[in-house]
Amino acid sequence: MNDIFTARGSVLIAGATINGSTVDIAIDETGTIAGIGEGIRREYDADVVIDGSDRLAVPGLVNTHTHAAMTLLRGYGDDMPLAEWLTQKIWPLEAHLSGDDVYAGTKLACLEMIKSGTVAFNDMYFFMDRAAQAVDDMGLRATLAYGFIDLGMEEKREAEIRATEALVAHVKSLDNPRIRAAVGPHSVYTVSPEGLRWCATFAEEQGIGIHVHLSETEKEVVDCVAEFGKRPAVLLDECGCLTPRTVAAHCCWLDEAECRLLGERGVSASHNPASNMKLAVNRAMPYRWLKQYGANVCLGTDGCASNNSLDLMEEMKFAALLQKFAWNSPTLLPAGEAVAMATAAGARALGTGPGTLTAGAPADIVLLDARAACNTPLHHADSNLVYACNGGAVMTVLCQGRVLMHERTVPGEEEIVRGAAAAARALVGRAREAS
Amino acid sequence: MNDIFTARGSVLIAGATINGSTVDIAIDETGTIAGIGEGIRREYDADVVIDGSDRLAVPGLVNTHTHAAMTLLRGYGDDMPLAEWLTQKIWPLEAHLSGDDVYAGTKLACLEMIKSGTVAFNDMYFFMDRAAQAVDDMGLRATLAYGFIDLGMEEKREAEIRATEALVAHVKSLDNPRIRAAVGPHSVYTVSPEGLRWCATFAEEQGIGIHVHLSETEKEVVDCVAEFGKRPAVLLDECGCLTPRTVAAHCCWLDEAECRLLGERGVSASHNPASNMKLAVNRAMPYRWLKQYGANVCLGTDGCASNNSLDLMEEMKFAALLQKFAWNSPTLLPAGEAVAMATAAGARALGTGPGTLTAGAPADIVLLDARAACNTPLHHADSNLVYACNGGAVMTVLCQGRVLMHERTVPGEEEIVRGAAAAARALVGRAREAS
Repeated sequence: MNDIFTARGSVLIAGATINGSTVDIAIDETGTIAGIGEGIRREYDADVVIDGSDRLAVPGLVNTHTHAAMTLLRGYGDDMPLAEWLTQKIWPLEAHLSGDDVYAGTKLACLEMIKSGTVAFNDMYFFMDRAAQAVDDMGLRATLAYGFIDLGMEEKREAEIRATEALVAHVKSLDNPRIRAAVGPHSVYTVSPEGLRWCATFAEEQGIGIHVHLSETEKEVVDCVAEFGKRPAVLLDECGCLTPRTVAAHCCWLDEAECRLLGERGVSASHNPASNMKLAVNRAMPYRWLKQYGANVCLGTDGCASNNSLDLMEEMKFAALLQKFAWNSPTLLPAGEAVAMATAAGARALGTGPGTLTAGAPADIVLLDARAACNTPLHHADSNLVYACNGGAVMTVLCQGRVLMHERTVPGEEEIVRGAAAAARALVGRAREAS
Repeated sequence: MNDIFTARGSVLIAGATINGSTVDIAIDETGTIAGIGEGIRREYDADVVIDGSDRLAVPGLVNTHTHAAMTLLRGYGDDMPLAEWLTQKIWPLEAHLSGDDVYAGTKLACLEMIKSGTVAFNDMYFFMDRAAQAVDDMGLRATLAYGFIDLGMEEKREAEIRATEALVAHVKSLDNPRIRAAVGPHSVYTVSPEGLRWCATFAEEQGIGIHVHLSETEKEVVDCVAEFGKRPAVLLDECGCLTPRTVAAHCCWLDEAECRLLGERGVSASHNPASNMKLAVNRAMPYRWLKQYGANVCLGTDGCASNNSLDLMEEMKFAALLQKFAWNSPTLLPAGEAVAMATAAGARALGTGPGTLTAGAPADIVLLDARAACNTPLHHADSNLVYACNGGAVMTVLCQGRVLMHERTVPGEEEIVRGAAAAARALVGRAREAS
């Protein structure tokens, strides 16, 4: 079994189901889909053959907003008001976080994502060189941003600029096509306009993405208007941060004009429904406006401190149900659109290909168990994917043609779990000692 | 391995974790928990020993509102307005439903519930003698009600009375302590006051439960007030239907006085958050009032046509997150309360014991994988259970001391899935031919 994980070469997925048809998927040695169709197996001599019978093939999922290493904080504090939660639980622990913790926590996050069908994620946190190491080990894709927070202080801004430059240089030095850097101005309430402008300019110079929180809470909007006389999206735009390379997370409190602005600038808006519900932000992303004005609406889980899961299949259901409930329309965000948010829109947001199962696309492929209870009966595959199944139905995951999970086995799983559990215990211990 | 499923006798779960302590659980030959504590294994000579290491033991979950056989309609119609969905999708298919279909669909539902940690459910549908057969085969608990709908017509009422009496007699004849009957007046908008009164009287005579839909939509309330000059809960109460044996599903549009009434009558209110969100009912159950006035708030998935999953672990997360979001409070319905809703409150609603892991309680026990990513780290077990894990973390399930699933294996799984898939295909075929 182990060789399927270490093999490098061509792959054939024989007889998987896509949209009700049984097809073979040929993957070349560069990890690109060479062809999809009936009977390909007769002509394709692959190094690795994966049996696709009783398997539904779908594109790998893309998580466009998370803080991966926060898996270590999963369940450490819940059911609290935001300010209390941050000051009493999250920040005291984060103050003791080490690079080793970020490595262990990101590895656990990668494991959890692979096990639930995610092949790529957009991350923002600290010690991101260690996050890069974890991603490199685990074999999926990531766009990594250092969380840039200057709080309006020039000295802090200089330090954040150096940290951002260092991460971008480090990621470049890795020369791993699966790992990219982005610039991560945290938000309008934590980064000065000067800081935002530097981020925009640097991202443009480097030709890399921008990862920012936008209009998560009403307070953010009210404070922004009070301080700057304009709403957050307008401020970001004036600082050059709204671009087709920008992923704006949350977007709950955007007004219609801001949605139009995001559409005009070609911004990707990452919907994070579970986190928004758990933190009671009191408004769901205005999906209908963002769609209407052509923004690229994609999907994210947020970090494990505020979700507390990285299962994007579960998140598709939260998105489809929250939109219906919050905007009072049972027809809003149907299953097919939720799948597209988690696949094609996510891939577009991170620039990782079309996010579809088509010849020429990167072989980022998930095989689901067609015989799972959640896929029975199979009236509509998209409906089952969004409303009935969760990550437990994912059997096999490929990223760029490389097998990351097969028949639910991920190499090294036990060690990753043990390492993360030990890191979390030690982190809590250090925080307790210091308090 | 197979003998663990067929064995009848005493059971020992050795070294499982409960609330952070490692304990043994002794189960006697009647399926009752004989003792829980450290070192019991040294004195307890059990017929079956289950290794509890790396397992968290929690009480079996109780699903207090579903239409189990509707698994066959999973994904057949979604993302539609309610009236269109019912008239174009659900009813045309249900018109062709047979007893064999209900047997196959209920078996699939039982399989799905067992795989996600549910040991008991409260069901309302048709051909309930066949549902009983499926429950009997699968080994979990159920309270089964025939969906009583008279639409105000005396002749139809007589037929519904006969069907209800027949089911109650049939369930009694089974003499299976795991299977009970209830009376199932569908709702105030489908059953006349005469019908409701008959149901209340008959349930009292028989000493059995009442299972009813209550205030799912605003339309139900508005129509009820227009026709009867009173709100639905008041009408139900006047007809004798609000009792400590009553489970009222949905309860979204109750006003404060109705919540007080449910509390006074000792009614169980079944929260169905995913269904309510998907159908965009536009109001979340007023959990805070129901709790304040002492109603027994429990949890249900509703049927698979409107959820589309029977995973009650997922439903706990929906409940905890929907309450926070809809009522704008991040502290509402914390994890511990969500767990109690799905366990102790559910058990109370169906009268199946305390719903806790305590000596003298029925051995309805779920063992979760403590080494799953969703349980790592393990800062708070309740938080992980509600917010991080889904049914995929369930490894072993016991009901009344009998092992229904072990290490995720349920006997006969493949055949159940195949049977349900074939029944669903044939059902759609019959409906198409007839249209």
